[in-house]
Formats: sequence, structure tokens, C-alpha cells
Amino acid sequence: MSAPFRHRTRVRWAECDLQGVAFYPNYLAWFDLVLTELWRAGGLPYPEMIRGGADMVVAEAAIRYRASARFDEEINLLATVRRLGSTSITTSISIERAEDGRLLAEGELRHVCVDPHTMEKRGLPARVREVLSQFTVEPERIAG
Amino acid sequence: MSAPFRHRTRVRWAECDLQGVAFYPNYLAWFDLVLTELWRAGGLPYPEMIRGGADMVVAEAAIRYRASARFDEEINLLATVRRLGSTSITTSISIERAEDGRLLAEGELRHVCVDPHTMEKRGLPARVREVLSQFTVEPERIAG
Amino acid sequence: MSAPFRHRTRVRWAECDLQGVAFYPNYLAWFDLVLTELWRAGGLPYPEMIRGGADMVVAEAAIRYRASARFDEEINLLATVRRLGSTSITTSISIERAEDGRLLAEGELRHVCVDPHTMEKRGLPARVREVLSQFTVEPERIAG
Amino acid sequence: MSAPFRHRTRVRWAECDLQGVAFYPNYLAWFDLVLTELWRAGGLPYPEMIRGGADMVVAEAAIRYRASARFDEEINLLATVRRLGSTSITTSISIERAEDGRLLAEGELRHVCVDPHTMEKRGLPARVREVLSQFTVEPERIAG
Repeated sequence: MSAPFRHRTRVRWAECDLQGVAFYPNYLAWFDLVLTELWRAGGLPYPEMIRGGADMVVAEAAIRYRASARFDEEINLLATVRRLGSTSITTSISIERAEDGRLLAEGELRHVCVDPHTMEKRGLPARVREVLSQFTVEPERIAG
Repeated sequence: MSAPFRHRTRVRWAECDLQGVAFYPNYLAWFDLVLTELWRAGGLPYPEMIRGGADMVVAEAAIRYRASARFDEEINLLATVRRLGSTSITTSISIERAEDGRLLAEGELRHVCVDPHTMEKRGLPARVREVLSQFTVEPERIAG
Repeated sequence: MSAPFRHRTRVRWAECDLQGVAFYPNYLAWFDLVLTELWRAGGLPYPEMIRGGADMVVAEAAIRYRASARFDEEINLLATVRRLGSTSITTSISIERAEDGRLLAEGELRHVCVDPHTMEKRGLPARVREVLSQFTVEPERIAG
Repeated sequence: MSAPFRHRTRVRWAECDLQGVAFYPNYLAWFDLVLTELWRAGGLPYPEMIRGGADMVVAEAAIRYRASARFDEEINLLATVRRLGSTSITTSISIERAEDGRLLAEGELRHVCVDPHTMEKRGLPARVREVLSQFTVEPERIAG
């Protein structure tokens, strides 16, 4: 398996607004969607990770919108793990129109690993690190 | 306090779709919103009810759409408790345009009381029954 | 092609609430999703229908919730056209858990055909009637 | 009127996820909400601006999440206009818990002004500039 991880979906009516295109907060929900699929593809579905004692909360998000995602068109969601810290994960995500490969949006999410019960920060479990390293383009660096 | 309970809100951009009006599933989310406000007005905010050992799940919903709720207009949400069963609650909810009182939608929700941990059906706690009876138009009837 | 039309999807994190299951208004958004897919499968994608001078608004929705749709599980959405009136369409929709076929919810939507510009009621175009008749279980009846 | 503009709302059940807190894309929908209220407070409700020939699309969004917004708690949304370019607007937005003033999130949105029909970039109308300057902390600068 090599980065970026790809997942295809189709823009839903429920995701579009009066401008006839997807409402901009919904692009972040697609960021979330591709990461859920990445976990599954990596062999650690999200519900299983939580049962294993690690949950993720988002600490930071950034997104640049390049062109509009329109109702009913297929889009590709691409995710790459950029950085595995001791307690955090940074991913780059982009969204392309499937038909012509046009870039619609790109951005980053930084997740922090927490204990699902206390919601306190905790180190990335070895299993999580192993799964994510399949989708990492650069050598893993250890950092805060 | 007398039925119906009223709560005013304003149609958000995020709730509207390509037709320029609120997307129809979002009316059910407004039904949910007015009930949350009804619990609070009745003296038992929803989070407190859950901590008290009772949660609610929706078993049935019905809605007739009469006219469109448009972006940025104020709407009144009206709720009346129709029936308090031994384990279930039926409410009638309607949505009016604030400006002219025009009926936009009306419908019913049937909730079943469950234990928040097991999600198993349980009887309505006395406190819940007492709170809801403030918003009941008909005499309380005991039934399944 | 024979009724019911089927479309599979997976429950998203964004669709679930504090009870750990899909929030009940979101089931209606799935109803909408399966109909969008039904239009496409029938040869008349929704955007094309609108360009052809016919849009649909929902006049009535009803749903019975039987069991919870949980995060990350696959669900089957099944749609059958029950009635083609002169200006309206009634569909039956159900949602099953893919893993074991368990019924999660079932309900009906009644759509009314409108002109996309004026939003005034109009007769069902012949093309729409033809597309939908592929998914009709009963003989088409002409009615209001 | 002086910056920042403030609008209070309450966290809805529909906005929360399995972690018991608001789902992170929904914070961007709150960013959108406070700007809609800012337009209205400034004397140019959003629908009126569109009718006047100017619509806004989001080109960039960034957000840092500091603490969780929980179901049913009141939050304050604060918006300040940071920069009025020739065709774009940059706003800083933050979200505080109403009860104790704790910062929950902060970020920026960059909007680009477009023609509502062609969706092509256009200059900020004088009326828009005038309305927004009420909420600007720094002297207006002219730039791309």
C-alpha cells in the first residue's frame, strides 16, 4: 500500500447549499470520512481502535477551497500521513473531481490521541503507529 | 405553563439546499430542538434526565410539509405532549413562519424511554411524567 | 430491473450522535440518497430531470425506527415506487443492516412534482413516469 | 458598533457526535452562522446582499480547537473583520463557552466576492465595504 490513500464518494443533496455546491464545512466531514476509510484499509477500523484504548480528537484543521464540488458528481478523497508525533498525527487531505482530476480542495488535519474514557492526551499506541506508517510518505519522525 | 410550548429559531444557511429552502430531513432536527427546549423549560434539562437514568429514543416520526422554510427567516416551533404511555411519549409538533404565522409543517414523534446504559426499554420515571404533564393538552392516559 | 431498488452505503461518523447511533433525522437523508441513486439507475439523473423542467418537493414523510444504525456499519437502502399519481409519487423505503439483513427502519415519502423555476405543482412528465415505472411493484394507477 | 461582533447560540444535539461533543466540521458552520448575524446586524441581511448582486464564497478556512463544545451548553460566537481587500474579506472568529468565557476554538475565514449568477470574482460593492467596516479593528487596507 502506498500514499496517498484514496476513497471515492459522490456529493449528496444533503451536502449542498443554496449556491448549488457543497457547503464548505462539509468538506471537513469528507476529510473525516477518508480517514475513517484509511483506518479500515490499514487493518484497524475506527471502532476497534477505540475499543483498544485510543481515540482521536482534532486539534487543528486548515483547508483551501479551489473549485466547487457540485451535487451528484463523484469526488476522490486522498489522504497522506505527514507526521507521526509522540501523541499527534498530521494528515494532508485533498479532494479531486473524479471526472477530470481537478483539485477542489486541499488541507491538513492534526489529531491528538486521547484515552476514550478520560479524554486525556496519551501516546500513540504501537498498533496505531504501525497502521499509519503504511500511509506515510516521509520517514517517521518522533516529535511532540 | 400551557401547551403548546413555543421556541423560536432562525433558518440557517447550513440547513438549506439547492432549492433555496430548508432540506426536509432538517425539519425533524427542529422537532428535536423544540423538545430539548421543552425539557429545559419544564425544569429537567436533557443532560440531567440522562444522568437520572432515562434516555429517549425515537420510535416513529411523521411529518406533513405545507410550505417551505426559507433561509434567514424566523420560525416558531410548537410542541404539545399528546400522550404519556407507560414507556412512551407522543408529541405533536408544528412549525410556523414567525412573520405571518403560516403553517410550514406539522407532525408527530413517538419516543420510547430507555435506560441510557443498556438502551433497554424502561418505564417513564415519575419526574419525567411530571415535567411532561405541564405540556399535555389532554388528561394523561395510561397505556403501552 | 425489478423493485425494490437497492443501494448500499456505510454509516458515517458525521451521521451519529451521542447515543452512538445514527441521529434519527439522518435516516430521512438516506431516504433521499437512495432515491437519487434510483433516478440515476433508471437513466434520469436528478440534475438532468431538473434541467428537463421537473423538480420534486417532499409533501409527506413517515418513518418507523426498528433498530439502530451504528457507526461504520454497512446498510442497504431499498426503495420501491408504490404509486404514481398525476402530480405525485409515493415511495416505500426501508433500511437494513447489511451484515445480517436486520430491518432498521421503514417508511414512506410522498413527492410532488413542481416546476423548478416557479415551484408550482405540475404533472409528472412522461419521461419521469417511464423511469419510475421500472421500480413500481403494482400496476400504475392514475390519481391525484 | 465595535468589534468583535457577538452572537450567542446553544449547542444542539444534531451537532454532537459519539464523543459527546460537537463534531469538528460543525464549528465551521457556526463560523458561518455568526457571519450571517453580522451581516444582519450591519444592516445588510445576506439575502439582500445577494439580491444586490454580490455573493460570497469561502476560499480558505483555518481553525484551532482548544476545548470541546458540549451538548446543550451556550456558546458565544465572536467575529472581527481583519482585512477588506479589493475582492476578498478576512475574518477572525472565536467560540467561547458562555458560562465561563473559556475559549473553545478560534480561526479565520477568507471569503471572495462573486457575482451570484456567474459565480465569477468581482470587486466588493461599496455597500458591503461600508457594512463590514463597522466590524473592522484595523484601518481598512486596499489589497488583492
